[in-house]
Amino acid sequence: MNHSPAHLETVVREIAAEMAVRTDRGKVASYIPELANVDIDAFGIAVIDTDGNVVTGGDSDVQFSIQSISKVFTLTIALGMVGDHLWQHVGREPSGSPFNSIVQLEREEGVPRNPFINAGAIAVTDVILSGHEPRVALGEILRFMRFLAQDQSIKIDEKVAASEQRTGFRNAALANYMKSFSVLQNPVEYTLGVYFHHCAIAMSCRQLAMAARFLANKGRDPSTGFQVVQAERARRINAIMLTCGHYDGSGEFAYRVGLPGKSGVGGGILAIAPGKASIAVWSPGLDDSGNSHLGRIALETLAKRMGWSIFGA
Amino acid sequence: MNHSPAHLETVVREIAAEMAVRTDRGKVASYIPELANVDIDAFGIAVIDTDGNVVTGGDSDVQFSIQSISKVFTLTIALGMVGDHLWQHVGREPSGSPFNSIVQLEREEGVPRNPFINAGAIAVTDVILSGHEPRVALGEILRFMRFLAQDQSIKIDEKVAASEQRTGFRNAALANYMKSFSVLQNPVEYTLGVYFHHCAIAMSCRQLAMAARFLANKGRDPSTGFQVVQAERARRINAIMLTCGHYDGSGEFAYRVGLPGKSGVGGGILAIAPGKASIAVWSPGLDDSGNSHLGRIALETLAKRMGWSIFGA
Amino acid sequence: MNHSPAHLETVVREIAAEMAVRTDRGKVASYIPELANVDIDAFGIAVIDTDGNVVTGGDSDVQFSIQSISKVFTLTIALGMVGDHLWQHVGREPSGSPFNSIVQLEREEGVPRNPFINAGAIAVTDVILSGHEPRVALGEILRFMRFLAQDQSIKIDEKVAASEQRTGFRNAALANYMKSFSVLQNPVEYTLGVYFHHCAIAMSCRQLAMAARFLANKGRDPSTGFQVVQAERARRINAIMLTCGHYDGSGEFAYRVGLPGKSGVGGGILAIAPGKASIAVWSPGLDDSGNSHLGRIALETLAKRMGWSIFGA
Amino acid sequence: MNHSPAHLETVVREIAAEMAVRTDRGKVASYIPELANVDIDAFGIAVIDTDGNVVTGGDSDVQFSIQSISKVFTLTIALGMVGDHLWQHVGREPSGSPFNSIVQLEREEGVPRNPFINAGAIAVTDVILSGHEPRVALGEILRFMRFLAQDQSIKIDEKVAASEQRTGFRNAALANYMKSFSVLQNPVEYTLGVYFHHCAIAMSCRQLAMAARFLANKGRDPSTGFQVVQAERARRINAIMLTCGHYDGSGEFAYRVGLPGKSGVGGGILAIAPGKASIAVWSPGLDDSGNSHLGRIALETLAKRMGWSIFGA
Repeated sequence: MNHSPAHLETVVREIAAEMAVRTDRGKVASYIPELANVDIDAFGIAVIDTDGNVVTGGDSDVQFSIQSISKVFTLTIALGMVGDHLWQHVGREPSGSPFNSIVQLEREEGVPRNPFINAGAIAVTDVILSGHEPRVALGEILRFMRFLAQDQSIKIDEKVAASEQRTGFRNAALANYMKSFSVLQNPVEYTLGVYFHHCAIAMSCRQLAMAARFLANKGRDPSTGFQVVQAERARRINAIMLTCGHYDGSGEFAYRVGLPGKSGVGGGILAIAPGKASIAVWSPGLDDSGNSHLGRIALETLAKRMGWSIFGA
Repeated sequence: MNHSPAHLETVVREIAAEMAVRTDRGKVASYIPELANVDIDAFGIAVIDTDGNVVTGGDSDVQFSIQSISKVFTLTIALGMVGDHLWQHVGREPSGSPFNSIVQLEREEGVPRNPFINAGAIAVTDVILSGHEPRVALGEILRFMRFLAQDQSIKIDEKVAASEQRTGFRNAALANYMKSFSVLQNPVEYTLGVYFHHCAIAMSCRQLAMAARFLANKGRDPSTGFQVVQAERARRINAIMLTCGHYDGSGEFAYRVGLPGKSGVGGGILAIAPGKASIAVWSPGLDDSGNSHLGRIALETLAKRMGWSIFGA
Repeated sequence: MNHSPAHLETVVREIAAEMAVRTDRGKVASYIPELANVDIDAFGIAVIDTDGNVVTGGDSDVQFSIQSISKVFTLTIALGMVGDHLWQHVGREPSGSPFNSIVQLEREEGVPRNPFINAGAIAVTDVILSGHEPRVALGEILRFMRFLAQDQSIKIDEKVAASEQRTGFRNAALANYMKSFSVLQNPVEYTLGVYFHHCAIAMSCRQLAMAARFLANKGRDPSTGFQVVQAERARRINAIMLTCGHYDGSGEFAYRVGLPGKSGVGGGILAIAPGKASIAVWSPGLDDSGNSHLGRIALETLAKRMGWSIFGA
Repeated sequence: MNHSPAHLETVVREIAAEMAVRTDRGKVASYIPELANVDIDAFGIAVIDTDGNVVTGGDSDVQFSIQSISKVFTLTIALGMVGDHLWQHVGREPSGSPFNSIVQLEREEGVPRNPFINAGAIAVTDVILSGHEPRVALGEILRFMRFLAQDQSIKIDEKVAASEQRTGFRNAALANYMKSFSVLQNPVEYTLGVYFHHCAIAMSCRQLAMAARFLANKGRDPSTGFQVVQAERARRINAIMLTCGHYDGSGEFAYRVGLPGKSGVGGGILAIAPGKASIAVWSPGLDDSGNSHLGRIALETLAKRMGWSIFGA
């Protein structure tokens, strides 16, 4: 396989061109008006290899709502705060259920299966909150994102956050349900408030790929050398992304793309080629499992042409 | 990382020694007498790298009942026979349920979630059977195993097969249930007969590691150069092993070991380090999820010391 | 309310006439050919009050497959054999699920919720079998039906029985599943054989109403004075019919009709007006819950016009 | 059977005496402190026959938290307001699940199975609220209870209401979940507020039995002749009490007692002998299904000695 930056550039250019002309684009999430207004024709991609080469295509600098992709970073923060104690609040098995299922919670007495389904991410947010004011926790999350992406301009889209807060009855059900099992420690509305806000962070593909470089590089930021997390922890976060990163489409993503990844209903997908690159794609149309349709296809193509699948060249 | 055969030999020797003295050995499967009689102190390991180096430790030549590990090979055969049509009979998502759950089948109208839970493996077996006599299908499976392992002595332990057939009511429930949805085409007792027999194949770690080399080597047998399956298919089988290979402990295995693997209640685990090695371990004591306790620990240690995790060095 | 035989005769005549002209007749069960061939226009009714007056209308002497109505009588036999020990094998709570659901069995470790869902009736049949040959148990069931109905001509429709046996994969799944939890004691195929055969008993409305008189009359056959079961047991069987007699439509039946009843997919419904009458209706078209559409309406009309609802005049 | 008031008086006296000396008293509900503080030795009974005879025993004038018994009256109010349209918001089938299960809600898209499980009662409360201020709806409920019981002193125990509101996370989960399916129309906190408050109404056995006379008497208050609901509606409310009144112990209650009834975790049970009497019992110790242990036994004894089972004398 050809791993040269020039080859990568060619491949990314091809993908951006191919995606631009496809007519199958999925369906934009409609459950909150702010997400529904996004242009279905948008497509962006950014790849940053471990040598620091940045290769982009399409709308790679347009900001979108990262939604569930934020869960990768809140997981990282919570692990940093409480280490393996986190696993008393949330499991790490794939769920075999849609992202907002409450059935599993009843069977397992309020402990969510993994940190990437909604219930699990709410439990992780509750750990980060840990008695502080919501705005303090939120400030910390935002600071971490800006630090990783080396970009102080990243911020929360307050309209999206407010919109989710107004309509997030399913998430309120999940949170209250966990609270009834004492899985959550903070007031439900505090935890939900922080959760809705970190899901409403707006970032571009370039910013996202920047922020996740440590996961492709043994836990270290390759530009500064700063060790964000230990190498083992980076591997383990990647493992959870692989098995649980796409709700009930996680098996399908592993099967087709072969990279750890995390999708959001805003149409973004973050993917990691361990030892090789951090990747972000964005296309707002979703497939039936709620994952970006073209985003997944773009990543599948990229992994194949670069020989980056973790399951064999 | 040091990938030299000498280093591998050192690591395997260390692991065999460490496992020999551990007192936490799990619990031997008791549901059929033939499995319960196995020596809890047994431990074997065999690693075959893509250059053909064979490194073994412990009871690497003792044969054990491969049980569910056979599902990797029946999946390979069925994909060879009907290609992607297979996915009309079985899904490829992790199940989020114990290996023999029937609940999921009701929700999804008789279509099992993946080829590695019992229901899914029975559906795959039914595809292989495809109207033939059970002994014909069984002969084909056995021939395939012998060919891959380059060992004509591999055979079925008839006592184990008979024992499972007598007590396999849960599997009979699964099979009849799928039949009620027309997911199975052959007579239930034929399909179950073949299923119980291929689970009763007896192999050693060395034989298993030999048989699975193609999965570590882009679908090709590295010694003969024979292309068993296309490279993409090998990657995809690895992906399913990673997400679904350990029932309700698949997330845990990915998190700790970081290699595609498939366990059996006989205490064996087959694991693949793509591009690097085919690995088989065996220790009959199981953990709560029904996976070999020491086998998992041995693989975790091996992956760590060799830097073989697919989620980053 | 007017309880005179003359009034009853008028009401039954009216109902038969009204049902004859209705065009909403439900759908005949199609899962076995023998049931599908029945005339959708058929309608029969027979009412026998506790004074022994027999009032009939329509096709009251045409025999039909009683199917699940047989479960009332097998429950009676099993309670006679083992008394309250029966409740170790089966519960007596409504299921909140379709008649052939297997999910509940997983949650409650193989013990069916009540004797009137398929799994429960299979468990009851297994108790009756209790180590005997299937034909012995079947002979006993048939003898009991003939004795109660005072009619030696009642017999099993062998074509229906054979047809169910061939296609009864869902029931085979339920039986094997219970067997895996040791809830069944006899060979699965024996228990299923007896179950399929007693469901295939053919009876007319008149015969059915005759057979169930003891349930309306404190456990006693009003014509012979023979005490079939103790009064308390008759009350309790009626209670189970009320709460569980119509699968997932039991609440609806209680709400609309207000009488203990048991339906069968052959289109028959047996109902009891305690202290007043034994009632059988038959119309082969079923509603969405699998209960006779016109049968339910006829019973609702009868209960209202006679003031027989157990929930108040 | 002897239905004379003198006989009834003897039976009630016997029951009160027998219950006073029993040592098996169940366990007082502990989930809110206000309920946990009740005296486990309390026992009360009040029976009011359709002729207006009032027979009481034990602590029949001590007020207790009626909790879920209030659901009978809110169902009556809601049916009065919207008639059969109510059944678009809630079903009328037994649930086969604990009183606070959320699993069933997921399967049936937010529509609760019946008005007597928590979710169903919350949906009924939402219908009563119908855009009004919570205190208006609550005033109406309270006025209805006082009118039926002919007692203006009945009121809400504000400490109990506040306590439930603080700890009612499970109910908040159910309400938010239904809201996410648009099954609830009002703000979640309004509906929950009214729900928690009507569950916190405090009444004595005598007051409760008074309030429910219309259900035993064709919908009419026997003392004033006022038609509270049509006779058919009274029958139907009784039917729902029979099939759904005791959560996952409804079948058991029908089997043992044979009367429509509704229990509350405060230890009260309201029961109806149609055409005969309105009955209330109270003993705070609960059985495993959450129903009053001695209350159930007292009712079973009463029904047997008076010959009041609706399933036959």
